[in-house]
Amino acid sequence: MEFIEEMTERGVTERRFQLEVDGETVPGILWTPEDARGARPLVLQGHGGTQHKRVPNILSLSRRLVRHNGYAVAAIDAPGHGERMTDEDRAHNEAIRRDGGAMTDERRKQLAERGRRVTGEWKTTLDALQKLDEVGNAGPIGYWGVSMGSAFGIPFVAAEPRVTCAIFGLAALSMGRRAIADHAEKIEVPLLFMNQLNDELMTPESALELFKAFGSKEKTMHINPGPHMGIPRFEVEQYELFYARHMGTAEP
Amino acid sequence: MEFIEEMTERGVTERRFQLEVDGETVPGILWTPEDARGARPLVLQGHGGTQHKRVPNILSLSRRLVRHNGYAVAAIDAPGHGERMTDEDRAHNEAIRRDGGAMTDERRKQLAERGRRVTGEWKTTLDALQKLDEVGNAGPIGYWGVSMGSAFGIPFVAAEPRVTCAIFGLAALSMGRRAIADHAEKIEVPLLFMNQLNDELMTPESALELFKAFGSKEKTMHINPGPHMGIPRFEVEQYELFYARHMGTAEP
Repeated sequence: MEFIEEMTERGVTERRFQLEVDGETVPGILWTPEDARGARPLVLQGHGGTQHKRVPNILSLSRRLVRHNGYAVAAIDAPGHGERMTDEDRAHNEAIRRDGGAMTDERRKQLAERGRRVTGEWKTTLDALQKLDEVGNAGPIGYWGVSMGSAFGIPFVAAEPRVTCAIFGLAALSMGRRAIADHAEKIEVPLLFMNQLNDELMTPESALELFKAFGSKEKTMHINPGPHMGIPRFEVEQYELFYARHMGTAEP
Repeated sequence: MEFIEEMTERGVTERRFQLEVDGETVPGILWTPEDARGARPLVLQGHGGTQHKRVPNILSLSRRLVRHNGYAVAAIDAPGHGERMTDEDRAHNEAIRRDGGAMTDERRKQLAERGRRVTGEWKTTLDALQKLDEVGNAGPIGYWGVSMGSAFGIPFVAAEPRVTCAIFGLAALSMGRRAIADHAEKIEVPLLFMNQLNDELMTPESALELFKAFGSKEKTMHINPGPHMGIPRFEVEQYELFYARHMGTAEP
């Protein structure tokens, strides 16, 4: 893991890093409290489709979790996203924006293939982060990711025993039929599952089916009115509370 | 409104009251901060079937809302419950406990008839409470009630413009088919709607249908695993946050 750039703003240090995974360069960001020393809870954030590691909702939640809970927070660009975007990816994203992101067999296949890559990338990132003094390897580790951040995050959390709780959402069985349910069944950590009543990409009934599939004993589903890109801002407070309940807090 | 008994414990004054509505004596409790002066937000709590105005969940939420948010909180016994229970009601409750509370036509009819009474009883109670200096008539007013507290509370909130936000739950379209949906459609205040995935009295799908029916623009549905009588304790914090967001807080 190589650190490239560092800046500190209102108590939050933001460091860009990159690391090599399977011959590809994966760029990421680590947010920590200014002058952080010693182990602390870590949250990994997976961005949505066509987004990247520093979109406003990821940046804002990262800063909140650092300032309010004293955590370390990391995000990486998914394959074909952010700094990893090719001209082909740009054309692909344009098509998604045009047709509203409807699922086709080709997109499902691409999502599954990228999802497999992302699990390996997160594992390697986590190995590197846990070697840092200001993160440490004692855990606990939380995951946050909705939409594509869940499509990739559900297989990752199912495969990664170091993750102790997770927030998913904007996700439904219809995203990948049985495949997603098979991963969901293996997850047993506490979950918060955020969904939208008028999501144009899935029905709340199909999201409820996925909620039922999670193997976790403690899991809470939230449904709010509005479209895919419209989780109400007041729910951000829930993320802080959820992580604090399951991972405690650290001195900022 | 006649006050009968008063006690104060750890900053919370609890006063039993009674008032006459349509020839019946309705007994209630008002919780306020010790030595409270001046107007403050008020929460009305409707208990569940076979329960009463001072069951542990109502008592504990009342005390939290008084201590943490500085509110006034009131609860009354529903017809056939608590101090209003007759031998016939006792036999009826015994039957409910025996068969798990399954809905029959007779029970639906009784619920509807009692629901109509309760709306009048709450309105009269609210009139009296708003005349007290430590409650005031400036509002805001919240409602809390799950299960029978929703079966009665949904028609009440639909009919009472003074209520500015409400928490319902353990409720579904199957509770009263169209009747409950007709009331739900008239409600436009912010809602929190708490439901259980393994509720033995209704399916989450039927609860989702009722959630869709509410006319409110801002409404959030929570679903947790577990039976009818098993809303997780951590959700209590949500009630405080929800009321604080919509009604503010007062000096305790």
